Amino acid sequence: MECQNYNLTRQVERENLNLNPLQRAGFLSPAAREALLEFGDGYSVCDYCAGRLDQVAKPGIDGFLEDLAKFINVDVVRTVHGAREGKYAVINKMCEPGDTIVVDGNAHYTSHLAAERAGVNIIEVPNSGDDRAEITIEQYQKTLEEAIDDVGEIKLALLTHVDGEYGNLTDAKALGKMCKKLGVISLLNSAYGMGRLPVDANGWDIDFVVGSGHKSMAASGPIGILGMKGEWEDEMLKRSPRHEKKEIELLGCTSRGAPIATLMASLPYVIERVNNWDEEVKLTREFVSKLEEIDGIQQIGVRPTEHDLVRFNTPTLHKIGLKHQRKGFYLYEELKNRNIVGIKKGQTEWFKCSTFGMSQEQRLYIAESFKEIVEKYL
Amino acid sequence: MECQNYNLTRQVERENLNLNPLQRAGFLSPAAREALLEFGDGYSVCDYCAGRLDQVAKPGIDGFLEDLAKFINVDVVRTVHGAREGKYAVINKMCEPGDTIVVDGNAHYTSHLAAERAGVNIIEVPNSGDDRAEITIEQYQKTLEEAIDDVGEIKLALLTHVDGEYGNLTDAKALGKMCKKLGVISLLNSAYGMGRLPVDANGWDIDFVVGSGHKSMAASGPIGILGMKGEWEDEMLKRSPRHEKKEIELLGCTSRGAPIATLMASLPYVIERVNNWDEEVKLTREFVSKLEEIDGIQQIGVRPTEHDLVRFNTPTLHKIGLKHQRKGFYLYEELKNRNIVGIKKGQTEWFKCSTFGMSQEQRLYIAESFKEIVEKYL
Repeated sequence: MECQNYNLTRQVERENLNLNPLQRAGFLSPAAREALLEFGDGYSVCDYCAGRLDQVAKPGIDGFLEDLAKFINVDVVRTVHGAREGKYAVINKMCEPGDTIVVDGNAHYTSHLAAERAGVNIIEVPNSGDDRAEITIEQYQKTLEEAIDDVGEIKLALLTHVDGEYGNLTDAKALGKMCKKLGVISLLNSAYGMGRLPVDANGWDIDFVVGSGHKSMAASGPIGILGMKGEWEDEMLKRSPRHEKKEIELLGCTSRGAPIATLMASLPYVIERVNNWDEEVKLTREFVSKLEEIDGIQQIGVRPTEHDLVRFNTPTLHKIGLKHQRKGFYLYEELKNRNIVGIKKGQTEWFKCSTFGMSQEQRLYIAESFKEIVEKYL
Repeated sequence: MECQNYNLTRQVERENLNLNPLQRAGFLSPAAREALLEFGDGYSVCDYCAGRLDQVAKPGIDGFLEDLAKFINVDVVRTVHGAREGKYAVINKMCEPGDTIVVDGNAHYTSHLAAERAGVNIIEVPNSGDDRAEITIEQYQKTLEEAIDDVGEIKLALLTHVDGEYGNLTDAKALGKMCKKLGVISLLNSAYGMGRLPVDANGWDIDFVVGSGHKSMAASGPIGILGMKGEWEDEMLKRSPRHEKKEIELLGCTSRGAPIATLMASLPYVIERVNNWDEEVKLTREFVSKLEEIDGIQQIGVRPTEHDLVRFNTPTLHKIGLKHQRKGFYLYEELKNRNIVGIKKGQTEWFKCSTFGMSQEQRLYIAESFKEIVEKYL
């Protein structure tokens, strides 16, 4: 049979300034690009496996997991296929079908799907309902306590550490402490946090934390992190009665190739960039200020932003599109002419973006480009 | 913090003749190595996603899935993280906790873990119990019918298309037809089949089939294939009531990076090699004959082999190790000196290996190397 042409190139997105928040912190480090080639084939990390991926010594997955556990301050850590697969594993293992969990109102869709797949009901903590779209711990506690009153037992409370729509950073420590007091298992979805900003799970009293290698840890997808307190290890990582080395909830082994090799190679680089998080936020705030110098461009979500993912309302850009012969596509095209990509074709009323890891010059260039485009047409 | 040295090199295993059956059919094709670099970063296939991975048009995942469905003759296909994740998805969705399924006695450990994770009991079809270790459909039918008598309803029957211990090829068509007659859902684990040998799921009346990209389809791990008959699509791929584009059992999206890009790039290459499967088996049989010229080396499992994975009993090699100053390690070391790797260090009583994809000269060289080693010490 004859195959179609799948158009397997990505030059435009690789070589230009990519504002897509999904993509910015997943770019491989130089060491990870080497590991990618070295471990690109099939089942490449399994040459010397004696039955447990987490104990493979060549390459040093065992030592890597020790370092990773220190980095995010958890007692036990495993890799999974992504943050969503980590959330599902926790909910599936810790809850029974028909149970109810509490989830913040800014949760990623995969938090809902993880609960639906596990047959678990969701009660939602509303955000502030205004342009800030803020999840406060006061509101979380209120919803959680009401849920306990109404339902009886709430097994688990999920908090989105940084949401993917507004880039709002929530108070994980307050959640951890509150859940401990109320006897509810806490699960922190740190897909947009871990690998960008400091995570201190034990310091925050968080039971389970998940992260995303491809989203925020300079790794090739798909790979995620599942960290936990030691008290959950036996239950969460229960072994098969029939295959005593194999952890049931992970189906034995999870990441068996380039994703884990690239994550390992990037860890020193990721640790270093997390140390520079304050500088990153400062540069993002400067970028936001520059963009807001344009009349009719306004950052929404919590202000000033505490994360690199920022969302803007952009009525000015929309107004231009109404009169432009290329309609809303003008923005994508004008940006692309300036080597800037990552904002969806045709989208002008609002956008979210990230300049994570860019130099100050690059960020300035992007802000100036938006100004130029607006001045050209307005 | 300071990271340990993870020793992220794999030169020995990449550059030598690797006999490990896990590794032989996962080597990337040249096109896949290009795709690996192009799509190595993070979430690389998600640049133009409108909410469904299987419908992404750039790169052409939509067209690829059409081609893949034709290639294995299924109505609907998705990528998952591996064959095990595919099996779990099917068992989890099609069965309830407490249900019983029937599984062949040569099943991979991940078939057991998938059932355990889903809370499902297993009744096992014994193999022939001799050196052939054969799973016959007569025995399968007997066990299945008895199970139906004993338990009442058997929801699902899993057959290992080619097992990983003996390389025995089972009769998938007979299983499919039998299951259809008995009203039992059939699930074929073709992790060692699909991508090496022809799969004709609809022709065999198989309800669900899983395959492995990193094991048998020249793709970077982890990635698997889940194919199904059209009649199961609505149930298996049920969408979230809350996120109407998202398939619950797949948690929305599965493969989101290099694994799917490499699988796509390799498909034409894989299709071509499957067309040469008869030649591959012929060359493997010649290799077996050559090895069996050594006194005390004997292939076990079904004979003549119908697959590239072959298992040998090797009392001669063991006898040498008893007297050798390096004990059982001599074999690994002697082979490595001859640029041959992939047989576990210290293992001499038996081994399994594969010469899949090697030239006739390479296979001959390996067989001659074993002869040399035996002659050197005996």
